[in-house]
Amino acid sequence: MDASQWGALGEQLRVDSVRASAAAGSGHPTSSMSAADLIAVLIAEHLRFDVDKPDDPNNDHVIFSKGHASPLEYSMLKAMGVLDDAELLTFRKFGSRLQGHPIPNLPMVDVATGSLGQGLPIGVGVALTGQRLDRLPYRVWVLCGDSELAEGSIWEAFEHAAYAGLDNLVAILDINRLGQRGETMHGWNLRNYAGRVEANGWHAIEIDGHDVEAIDRAYAEAEATSGKPTAIIAKTVKGKGVAAVENKNGFHGKPLDDPEAAIAELGGERDLHVDVAKPESHGTPHVFETSGAALPTYDLGDKVATRKAYGDALTAVGANHGDVVALDGEVGNSTYAELFSDTHPDRYFEMFIAEQQMIATAVGMQVRGWKPYASTFAAFLARSADFTRMAAISRADLRVSGSHAGVSIGEDGPSQMALEDLAYFRALHSSAVLYPCDGNQTAQLTEAMADRDGITYIRTTRGGTPVIYGPDDRFEIGGSRVVRASDEDEVLLVGAGITLHEALQAADALADDGIRARVVDCYSLKPIDTDGLREAAAAAGDRVVTVEDHWPEGGLGDAVLGAFADADDRPRVVKLAVRDMPGSGKPDELLHAAGIDADAIASAARALVRGGVPV
Amino acid sequence: MDASQWGALGEQLRVDSVRASAAAGSGHPTSSMSAADLIAVLIAEHLRFDVDKPDDPNNDHVIFSKGHASPLEYSMLKAMGVLDDAELLTFRKFGSRLQGHPIPNLPMVDVATGSLGQGLPIGVGVALTGQRLDRLPYRVWVLCGDSELAEGSIWEAFEHAAYAGLDNLVAILDINRLGQRGETMHGWNLRNYAGRVEANGWHAIEIDGHDVEAIDRAYAEAEATSGKPTAIIAKTVKGKGVAAVENKNGFHGKPLDDPEAAIAELGGERDLHVDVAKPESHGTPHVFETSGAALPTYDLGDKVATRKAYGDALTAVGANHGDVVALDGEVGNSTYAELFSDTHPDRYFEMFIAEQQMIATAVGMQVRGWKPYASTFAAFLARSADFTRMAAISRADLRVSGSHAGVSIGEDGPSQMALEDLAYFRALHSSAVLYPCDGNQTAQLTEAMADRDGITYIRTTRGGTPVIYGPDDRFEIGGSRVVRASDEDEVLLVGAGITLHEALQAADALADDGIRARVVDCYSLKPIDTDGLREAAAAAGDRVVTVEDHWPEGGLGDAVLGAFADADDRPRVVKLAVRDMPGSGKPDELLHAAGIDADAIASAARALVRGGVPV
Repeated sequence: MDASQWGALGEQLRVDSVRASAAAGSGHPTSSMSAADLIAVLIAEHLRFDVDKPDDPNNDHVIFSKGHASPLEYSMLKAMGVLDDAELLTFRKFGSRLQGHPIPNLPMVDVATGSLGQGLPIGVGVALTGQRLDRLPYRVWVLCGDSELAEGSIWEAFEHAAYAGLDNLVAILDINRLGQRGETMHGWNLRNYAGRVEANGWHAIEIDGHDVEAIDRAYAEAEATSGKPTAIIAKTVKGKGVAAVENKNGFHGKPLDDPEAAIAELGGERDLHVDVAKPESHGTPHVFETSGAALPTYDLGDKVATRKAYGDALTAVGANHGDVVALDGEVGNSTYAELFSDTHPDRYFEMFIAEQQMIATAVGMQVRGWKPYASTFAAFLARSADFTRMAAISRADLRVSGSHAGVSIGEDGPSQMALEDLAYFRALHSSAVLYPCDGNQTAQLTEAMADRDGITYIRTTRGGTPVIYGPDDRFEIGGSRVVRASDEDEVLLVGAGITLHEALQAADALADDGIRARVVDCYSLKPIDTDGLREAAAAAGDRVVTVEDHWPEGGLGDAVLGAFADADDRPRVVKLAVRDMPGSGKPDELLHAAGIDADAIASAARALVRGGVPV
Repeated sequence: MDASQWGALGEQLRVDSVRASAAAGSGHPTSSMSAADLIAVLIAEHLRFDVDKPDDPNNDHVIFSKGHASPLEYSMLKAMGVLDDAELLTFRKFGSRLQGHPIPNLPMVDVATGSLGQGLPIGVGVALTGQRLDRLPYRVWVLCGDSELAEGSIWEAFEHAAYAGLDNLVAILDINRLGQRGETMHGWNLRNYAGRVEANGWHAIEIDGHDVEAIDRAYAEAEATSGKPTAIIAKTVKGKGVAAVENKNGFHGKPLDDPEAAIAELGGERDLHVDVAKPESHGTPHVFETSGAALPTYDLGDKVATRKAYGDALTAVGANHGDVVALDGEVGNSTYAELFSDTHPDRYFEMFIAEQQMIATAVGMQVRGWKPYASTFAAFLARSADFTRMAAISRADLRVSGSHAGVSIGEDGPSQMALEDLAYFRALHSSAVLYPCDGNQTAQLTEAMADRDGITYIRTTRGGTPVIYGPDDRFEIGGSRVVRASDEDEVLLVGAGITLHEALQAADALADDGIRARVVDCYSLKPIDTDGLREAAAAAGDRVVTVEDHWPEGGLGDAVLGAFADADDRPRVVKLAVRDMPGSGKPDELLHAAGIDADAIASAARALVRGGVPV
């Protein structure tokens, strides 16, 4: 497209943003209008993207970190020929592909955005993939709003991008001064943003975001910058071009009152088409050669920490799958993800103490088809909860490992004890939640995660637990295992992970009292083995004790109750869980104090069998 | 204490850190040793704290953001006379006050730390309290590690502190170069940190963190700096003073192998006592005068959004309680918290799009006895999940409001729809979880939150819902309400918030079919009204349908199942919830598509009554 048309293209994008929002009766036209010229010049002159081959690995990536500028994104796709005008006007309607905030259901839309401060961190992940995994020269362009620059996650992204020297990444900062309800902290103080970005090691360019020639020069300068990422800090006007809303507060997230007048003021409807340039590169993504490896196995009766088995197994999975990559939040010697780095250093990513950036990077990597496993202490996955929430909306395929779960970690105390992670990961669309109890089971499940779509979470334990399964035992996501059974069982004990071993000890103690207890290892909390649990409960007098190293809400007990909710036979269930705030101490002391050790289980089971409910 | 003893005091703190960790057999001595001189000079010369009156409002605050340096914190308290040596050696033992990471069970320990990147944001909250609420000249000193400076939350804190001009805040950055498993991104590049801090508007001072005179000068310079906060960027040595571990990787979080030799190398045990200077100020905290106001009331049958009723009620609560303050994440015109700001502008805090800093600020304010209500979209509370997790460990009293819950928000799509917030807040120690369905109920519960200890969460709805309760109806945390009942009920419908209205419509439809349905408003998910639910289910044929605008896991349905788990009569429960990823659309379309509208409820109830389980 000739440079003389860039301005008109910007106006078209504004007009179409106004039209789409007017048709929807909602949306964010004014937030779209500020960035329209930035996007016009991008697609007209600098983007490299084969519209006919949206999956070409050489294509550039464009991420709208300010996802509420979806009218602009869809108007852009219309100008590129990806959508037609009729579809543009389905914006926000039930069943339309054009949702209120973007999801990856359209060519060029890689991920869902709309929770602010996530697009840039994910863009860092995509750019890192280009640099270190795909090894292709595609560029990643991320459009950020100024309000979202208050999110700490954005500053994790700035830091990591500079640390990795991502000169294939361009952040376009749309500084329109106005947030949802008023001015941002820094208004049009471009120097404030530039100073912070430069201090993080980026190249910063300050421009007038409505001067198309300045925008073009800035993009060219970004393309010519090597060794560091570039941020283009653009002074823009919210609602640009429509006097009724231009640079005025109070018009965020609303269609314009008089769209016809606004369209006329913007020069009327246009139908400019942009033939986006195709990538010059025709490379193929790098492939890591693999040597193959057997999954680790452990001897019955040995004590093995499941976190260690996870690290061993992840290393083997990496040797069998060249597309598997590992990330860790600077605790790889605790999660044992560092074992992977010893064998596959080029596929290991140290994300330091930045859990949000860790998950965002993983999301960025799976955009390009890589299979990330991200590991940290399970407790610290609460830090990235909004990133896993959005990853589900992105339909991302992620594998997440949380170590050091529960009070059984011991002396470090509650700040390091995950007691809510099962609830968090269960309440996530697309998720599976696994909690193995021994080394061989952990290895099997770690391997099974590789091929599962969606978000798969595995919870591991700090201390060593006895190996109770043989190397040939097979475990599938969604299964459970009857570990102990007789024909005369009177009560069912359901545990997982650390508590499975307590349940087995409790069964021994109960046997001494003449009470036969069936024990089920419910290692897959989601999907849960409804049939298996119902069968086991029926065979054990419809009396059930569940026991978990977790708060009582949202974990194993709730999952088991769900399996019986609408069954014909609904057992009496006593749920043992951590109810008081734990402190420091030895693992055994803490399991006992929390009422989730063998003593507590046996006591609850005895009371159930003998007809009462324990107090 | 004479300046000539500062060095010896630093050595004592190192020795005691080594001793405590050796006695525990775990802990972080090397991370303590790097910061010992910084803390020695602080308590010897600059801190103002009345050890005999730890609750004096004029006292300075000291927050160990690097909570793993707890051996140093306890050694400091010993030197100040707060602990004795015998207690120091109980570190990390079961029942000891001296936990692995600090909790606020000791004088001078305001909050729990140990999840990195939280102490500085909370310190910003305490300093803001000094400046704008208490209006007292106390100072807040925060000790940060360098690894945690990779957390985005730290940069939210730097930005907010400068924006507020908090010259009563000093961040002490212990740049010891080594993280848990290796070098940080920036090693000893002090200029990198200083540049980023300065770009955020702070005064930065780079020093040798083992030069006690330089430390003293830096603190004096911080005290003399007005209008902006100061960061002291101290080059330190991890494991300082013990050759076996000094500046060496691989010794994080471990007691020293030979503590006796280390103690000797550090000059042996000492018993220096520091008489910490008392505050010069004897002020009393500012008190906001209140005029009093009646809670808002709404007329039966009117349509009122519960988010609006929350804002109205919060404003009234503020008029009745001078210690109530409100914070919002730059969406006050959506959460309606901004109504509070119109009436009580001095007690309203705009936290911009920085949910972590919002919760941290609230935690800091309640340290000083203020009663914060923090509001944002419920979906974005996932961003601050680790902060609410830690707030529970801090035994913080917080009130949190999440608006725009569930698919019923409509066109904005899933990124803005909280579908996991009930699970998150239920799985939090000390929490209550409230979900009102009408304006009058919302007002009552908003008021009840003010006096509740712990973390109290209220979920509000975007759209208007009919007022079904009179202004004189009373609602308590932990209650439920039978909204419709007869003597011939065959099924119980349990809803809350938006779904309660769907349940009422379903009951109408069922009545047309000759099926009597009892309806319970389960507005308090935690604590849940176990007795009320059991009674209602028994009176309705032990058939229950739960319905929630939330994922199936961890929300209303799971809470209700928990109420029946060990009951004698365990009803058959069909749980309706959002199972597929929603998109954009009208609220009614989305409630229908999710299978949680009146049609779906009636259909599930019919199937239950007629003997089957709906498919």
